[in-house]
Amino acid sequence: MLVTLTTDFGLRDGYVAAMKGAMLHVEPELRLLDVSHAVAAQDVMEGAFVLRQVVPYTPPGTVHLAVVDPGVGSARQGIAARFGEQFFVGPDNGLLALLLDGEAPDETVVLDRPAFWRTPEPSATFHGRDVFGPVAAHLARGTRLGNLGSPAEPLGRLLWPLPRADAQGIEGWVAHIDGYGNCITNIPRRLVERYRAGRPVKGFVGSTIVRDVQRTYSDVPPGEPLMLYGSEDVLEVSVNEGNAACLLSVRRGNPVTLVFEGPAP
Amino acid sequence: MLVTLTTDFGLRDGYVAAMKGAMLHVEPELRLLDVSHAVAAQDVMEGAFVLRQVVPYTPPGTVHLAVVDPGVGSARQGIAARFGEQFFVGPDNGLLALLLDGEAPDETVVLDRPAFWRTPEPSATFHGRDVFGPVAAHLARGTRLGNLGSPAEPLGRLLWPLPRADAQGIEGWVAHIDGYGNCITNIPRRLVERYRAGRPVKGFVGSTIVRDVQRTYSDVPPGEPLMLYGSEDVLEVSVNEGNAACLLSVRRGNPVTLVFEGPAP
Amino acid sequence: MLVTLTTDFGLRDGYVAAMKGAMLHVEPELRLLDVSHAVAAQDVMEGAFVLRQVVPYTPPGTVHLAVVDPGVGSARQGIAARFGEQFFVGPDNGLLALLLDGEAPDETVVLDRPAFWRTPEPSATFHGRDVFGPVAAHLARGTRLGNLGSPAEPLGRLLWPLPRADAQGIEGWVAHIDGYGNCITNIPRRLVERYRAGRPVKGFVGSTIVRDVQRTYSDVPPGEPLMLYGSEDVLEVSVNEGNAACLLSVRRGNPVTLVFEGPAP
Repeated sequence: MLVTLTTDFGLRDGYVAAMKGAMLHVEPELRLLDVSHAVAAQDVMEGAFVLRQVVPYTPPGTVHLAVVDPGVGSARQGIAARFGEQFFVGPDNGLLALLLDGEAPDETVVLDRPAFWRTPEPSATFHGRDVFGPVAAHLARGTRLGNLGSPAEPLGRLLWPLPRADAQGIEGWVAHIDGYGNCITNIPRRLVERYRAGRPVKGFVGSTIVRDVQRTYSDVPPGEPLMLYGSEDVLEVSVNEGNAACLLSVRRGNPVTLVFEGPAP
Repeated sequence: MLVTLTTDFGLRDGYVAAMKGAMLHVEPELRLLDVSHAVAAQDVMEGAFVLRQVVPYTPPGTVHLAVVDPGVGSARQGIAARFGEQFFVGPDNGLLALLLDGEAPDETVVLDRPAFWRTPEPSATFHGRDVFGPVAAHLARGTRLGNLGSPAEPLGRLLWPLPRADAQGIEGWVAHIDGYGNCITNIPRRLVERYRAGRPVKGFVGSTIVRDVQRTYSDVPPGEPLMLYGSEDVLEVSVNEGNAACLLSVRRGNPVTLVFEGPAP
Repeated sequence: MLVTLTTDFGLRDGYVAAMKGAMLHVEPELRLLDVSHAVAAQDVMEGAFVLRQVVPYTPPGTVHLAVVDPGVGSARQGIAARFGEQFFVGPDNGLLALLLDGEAPDETVVLDRPAFWRTPEPSATFHGRDVFGPVAAHLARGTRLGNLGSPAEPLGRLLWPLPRADAQGIEGWVAHIDGYGNCITNIPRRLVERYRAGRPVKGFVGSTIVRDVQRTYSDVPPGEPLMLYGSEDVLEVSVNEGNAACLLSVRRGNPVTLVFEGPAP
């Protein structure tokens, strides 16, 4: 009965509460867990990123409702899907594909059954309240996924850009800047460790060069930049007790280049 | 047992949680639904606006606690009211009158019974925690409205400014700017459609002129301004995938003028 | 089963929801009450301040999870403690000592038992999700404090700076600026009233001088500065319907000087 919510609705307006109200109409006992409603407006990639930080830690059977929906009211379809023991509901605009890293869901349906919506004539601008929220509530209260709509074609395979690696080094980029200013890259730990083969590593990012990969922030003095593997085991560029994005002039999408020192083994 | 919360307490301080703690003392099983705590400080009109976005979508019996309270500790009264199957608690400063659009509640009481407060000597600066929160909790757990205080005089009839319409056009204004930058006017769909009588319409707003009323954002190319009827069926000026308030230099309170083209039928 | 949450994780990322997900794995019926996730990054003092606004108003048996953790992954210890009928979980970095105002908890343990963590090998950068959240969940579902870890040494006695008072006046400082711009000092009501002994008082703060202590904001005209005792009974410098910090050029840490007029009795 747990539903997580990820939207770009913001925290000043009543949009989130209107959607939740429509969900509680369907099932008053729902448990609602906010992931973020401060995703940048229409930023599907950021929505996928913050939800990826959460999915591995929710109990089996959780429904993830993700509504970052620049195409609301257009021909884009609404979908519900199952991947392992987790469920997903939202517009089919690439967010789910990014979330699953290109893997196909085990089961997907197109939301074409108005019986599960708040109204058969949903607003052209607010499908979160009128379609996706109620559908997520039905799913969480036990309606089978296959009942919510017709079987869907495979999703479009929108993918994160991948880092490039060889014996000299790795080129990646900054996928997300979190609230502390940590610059989270698209370079997983296992890729670095496989290619560096024990050699020292230098990272070029923004206005600085960082040596070695530390274990935690306080392994360098306050104010110093460092690289470490963050809580999702991807490379992160940070400043101990500081805001790396500001101090190192880094923005999302900027390149991060790792160079391995010494001859390849 | 559902209570919605609308305040200007902000998200950094402990004020919201202190109020909720006092409510859970009264009834540990309460279900709390945040509408917004980021209403601009002391902005009663904004508080009413965001709560209006939510009330139609909450289940019957819901209690709406709205505390935007510039006059806390002064002679302004606290009230609780019922309108249809929805309940309201808060200071009597016009927010409820705005919310109900000038209609009188079915039943109203003045909160003059300290037995339902956290303490008979409430703080002079925080009636949300000491009076309104506990009263809302008692109401949600089943105390009859009539028990919470003495019958009240009719509320002051604070009203939203109304748009002016004739056969040539309509003059309204921007009532709210949401987190996307959408400029939500005080002009309802039915008013436009009745007066335009099928004629084309031009809208003058901020630095631009917009033609016609679209169905949804993506009916125009990204970056283009448009008018549409939003999720509450009032006219809204937006930019597809952009922030209309910024791009068109619009602020709350600015005029929006509609002109109908061609002779009146 | 009530757990409050105070962190500097911010509202854009999925960190808060990941921690809550890990907690709901331990106990799906937990009741979670957000205090603030917008504490300034690594600002232990602000975390303690906002949680102090809440603790007196929560029911007995509440668990307070406070994770503002600049030293995550370093040698700093995790602790759980009981003070009266309230429980606390978090890193031992002074936040709890500030919260308790120098008083010792009734019982404290060091979190050295991985059986109560999400994983015996927690991330070096996210103990909220991997250690503190799960421990708080176990505590809330009934695990005895003494089972969660080994008895701890007394905590470091990190203390708030204290105001200085004599017959002429009091010197204090601004401990917190809230979302309205109210400047909350470290000067309690009882200290002022004891030393002023009925004499008039003048307050020097930022760019202004304020006379007397009012009962509530609206005791002065809109836009005027005033002093009052806020909802926690400490002296606060405010502007009626305005932002005192902006209008009076006050920042956290600035001095506030009270001068009593006339001879000491």
